This record gives sequence, structure tokens and C-alpha cells, in this order.
Amino acid sequence: MLLYIKIIYNITDWGGILKLNERGLLVIISGPSGVGKGTIRKALFDISDNNFCYSVSMTTRKPRKGEVDGQDYFFVSKEEFEKRIKENGFLEYAEFVGEYYGTPMDYINKKLQAGKEVIIEVEVQGALQVHERLPEAVFIFIVPPSKKALIKRLQNRGTDSPSIIKKRINKAEREYSLAYKYDYIVVNDDVANAADRIYAIIRAEHAKTERSIHRYYKLMEGKE
Amino acid sequence: MLLYIKIIYNITDWGGILKLNERGLLVIISGPSGVGKGTIRKALFDISDNNFCYSVSMTTRKPRKGEVDGQDYFFVSKEEFEKRIKENGFLEYAEFVGEYYGTPMDYINKKLQAGKEVIIEVEVQGALQVHERLPEAVFIFIVPPSKKALIKRLQNRGTDSPSIIKKRINKAEREYSLAYKYDYIVVNDDVANAADRIYAIIRAEHAKTERSIHRYYKLMEGKE
Repeated sequence: MLLYIKIIYNITDWGGILKLNERGLLVIISGPSGVGKGTIRKALFDISDNNFCYSVSMTTRKPRKGEVDGQDYFFVSKEEFEKRIKENGFLEYAEFVGEYYGTPMDYINKKLQAGKEVIIEVEVQGALQVHERLPEAVFIFIVPPSKKALIKRLQNRGTDSPSIIKKRINKAEREYSLAYKYDYIVVNDDVANAADRIYAIIRAEHAKTERSIHRYYKLMEGKE
Repeated sequence: MLLYIKIIYNITDWGGILKLNERGLLVIISGPSGVGKGTIRKALFDISDNNFCYSVSMTTRKPRKGEVDGQDYFFVSKEEFEKRIKENGFLEYAEFVGEYYGTPMDYINKKLQAGKEVIIEVEVQGALQVHERLPEAVFIFIVPPSKKALIKRLQNRGTDSPSIIKKRINKAEREYSLAYKYDYIVVNDDVANAADRIYAIIRAEHAKTERSIHRYYKLMEGKE
């Protein structure tokens, strides 16, 4: 299937390489809780020579001490949030303890258009929402190296009661079975390696024919 | 589409990363003549930490001075070559000035099964033959950074007459239009960069869900 990708027609460099696909990629890092998504995302941003940006969420909850508007969250009123929902302005959103949390579309579009890779880290349900809306995004599922490693990780996390840990493991198991909905499966055996693998995926995705052929034909027709 | 990939069930490392897809990849580096396929292939093999192997061709022509059987070519008789053709033993083959040249299947299968990435460098017509036979291979099309760069390169190559150069340019133009048949388009603006991009593609392909989900589910079922 050939995707329609809007391409900006000026040559820029990315990691020293001529990119045929000038638009940034929307990269969804997902996976069950306890798998280490957040740590991998941070390691990914530590790779030098990246042009990644992290999608800032929007929320209706009040800012906590030290939180900066536009950096930690975009803080808005309930009215504004619901207006945006009606305007289809969220890539995905959810309500949690009476407050909204969502990923605003306009912010993402602006960054993608500027050639930035937008990285989003979301739970499995959020990722499936994004898939409905933007199937051309790159969906990466993070998995532990073994079932044992996952259980150990969930058990060591905080000071939860055995019944809560059991619930978490059950939830993780349901989520694990959804791996087939993603484009890539990355094993978190080592954080730096996993981040590096995601970096390779992003570079490879830019070279995909469906993302680069439009501009390539323009180049070959001498129209650039 | 889910591909059937035969997976060997023992954990090995590749570039320090747990590979869910244990079988090697067949990587086809192709593109019109004059684009620098051979140079890129050599640069790719210079990347440390690789487990690539180059597919040795089979031919019926006599070995030239210094050529080693099994290294430069597998040298066989015409009878043996034709027997293999009948047995469907070639990934692709062609006749050239009365001699056969081909890529034997058994050699490739052995290497793939051992987890090696098999790199093949072929002309566009050969790549299309491979595509018919093994669509699960990874097809990479090398392109020049511009039409001007291509023409310059073809003109500077050897001491051919203007009419031969013109024929080459025409052939290259026909071949360029076949880019859409490939999985990836890699620009040869710089040899090291192009090789590096191919390396990223190989790593990303291993993480593709269709290649890794089978083993992943085994891991999650605790069967490993």
C-alpha cells in the first residue's frame, strides 16, 4: 500500500544523510507496563545526532509545583479540552480521576512538518487509538527478554500488595498478546541496545520506498 | 501479510542485541549501473560487528589466473549448471557470451540458516528475478543524489564512445523507473553513509513484527 506522505521540497541533512523523506516520523513507543518504555525513551534522546522531539501532553489538571506549561504539559481548562475533542484535535486522549489527558494533533503536525521525529510513549490502549487515526506512524512494541524478567520487574516495582502485583501481571499478559498489531518488536535486554535498535528503525523507515519514492522521482526528472 | 519464517530456537547475540529473528536475512543491493553498488557493498562489509556474508556466484566459465574455487566463483561444468537449472537450484541466473552465471540456492540457504546475513549485489533484472522467487528478501535500490551526478558518473567511467555512454544513460533511466518494486531507496550521496543506512535497514528488518513475533510468543509462553 502506498501512503500519501506530504513532502517538503528542500534538501536538508539528517545525520549527514540526504533524506528523501523530508517529513519527520511519528514514532510510537509502547508496550505493557513494567517493560521499561520510559527508560528507553530517555536513552533514545541521549543518542547524539538526533532531531527527536518529545510530544508534550495536554491536561486539565492543575500544574504541580515546579511544572512548566508547554514543557511538562500544556495546561488548559476543561472547556478548552472538550472543545478540542469536538474538533477532533487529539491523536489520543483519556479521562483519569476526573481529569483529561491527551496528545494534541497541532503540536505534532507542526513538528513533523519541520522534519522532526516526534516520539510518543504510550500505553497499549493509547497506541491502538493512534493506530486508528494515523496508521502511517511507526509502531514499536517493547518486550522483556523473558516472562521471568517481566514478573520480576513488576514485583520489584514499588511496595504494592501481592494482589495488585497479580493484577498487573494479568494486565501485562493481555497486553503482550497485542504485539501483532505493531510494526516492530524490540527486546529490552539492555536499555542502550534497545534505544539503538529504535534509532536504526527510524533511519530505515525514512528509506522505505513508500515514504521516499515521491521525492526520488522528482529528483530523477531533474525538477529539483 | 504474515510471512512464514523458519526460526532456529536458540538465543544468540548479534551486535550485542537479542535477536528474535534468528534466521539471517537475504539482502539484495541493486540499482542501475554506475550508481556505486559495488563500492557500497564493500563499505558495508567494512562495518565492524557484522555477520554478513557475500553470496559466491556459480559459473561455467574457466577460472582466470589467481581465481579460487568457492571464493571468487564456484566453477562447474555446463552439464552440472544445467542440471541445477532443471532442479530449480538458482535464485537467479543468466547466460552471458555462451557461459552461465548464477546464484546457487543451497549455499544461500545454508548461510541464512546459520544466522548469517547474505548480501547479494545484482543488476535490476536479476533483482526482479529474486523478487519472484523470494519476496521476503530485503530489496534495496541504490540511487544517485541527482540525475546530473548519474550522468557525470556514467560519462567518467572508462573511455567509452559518446554513443555507448548515451545507451547506458538510456538503460539507467529505464531502470530508475523500477524503484517502486523495491522495499527501500538509499541515496548514494556518500559511500560510508549509504552503507550505514543499509546497516540500519538490516537491524530494523530483524525487529519487524512479521519476522520476530513467532519466537516472541514462544518466549512469552515460557517455552524457551
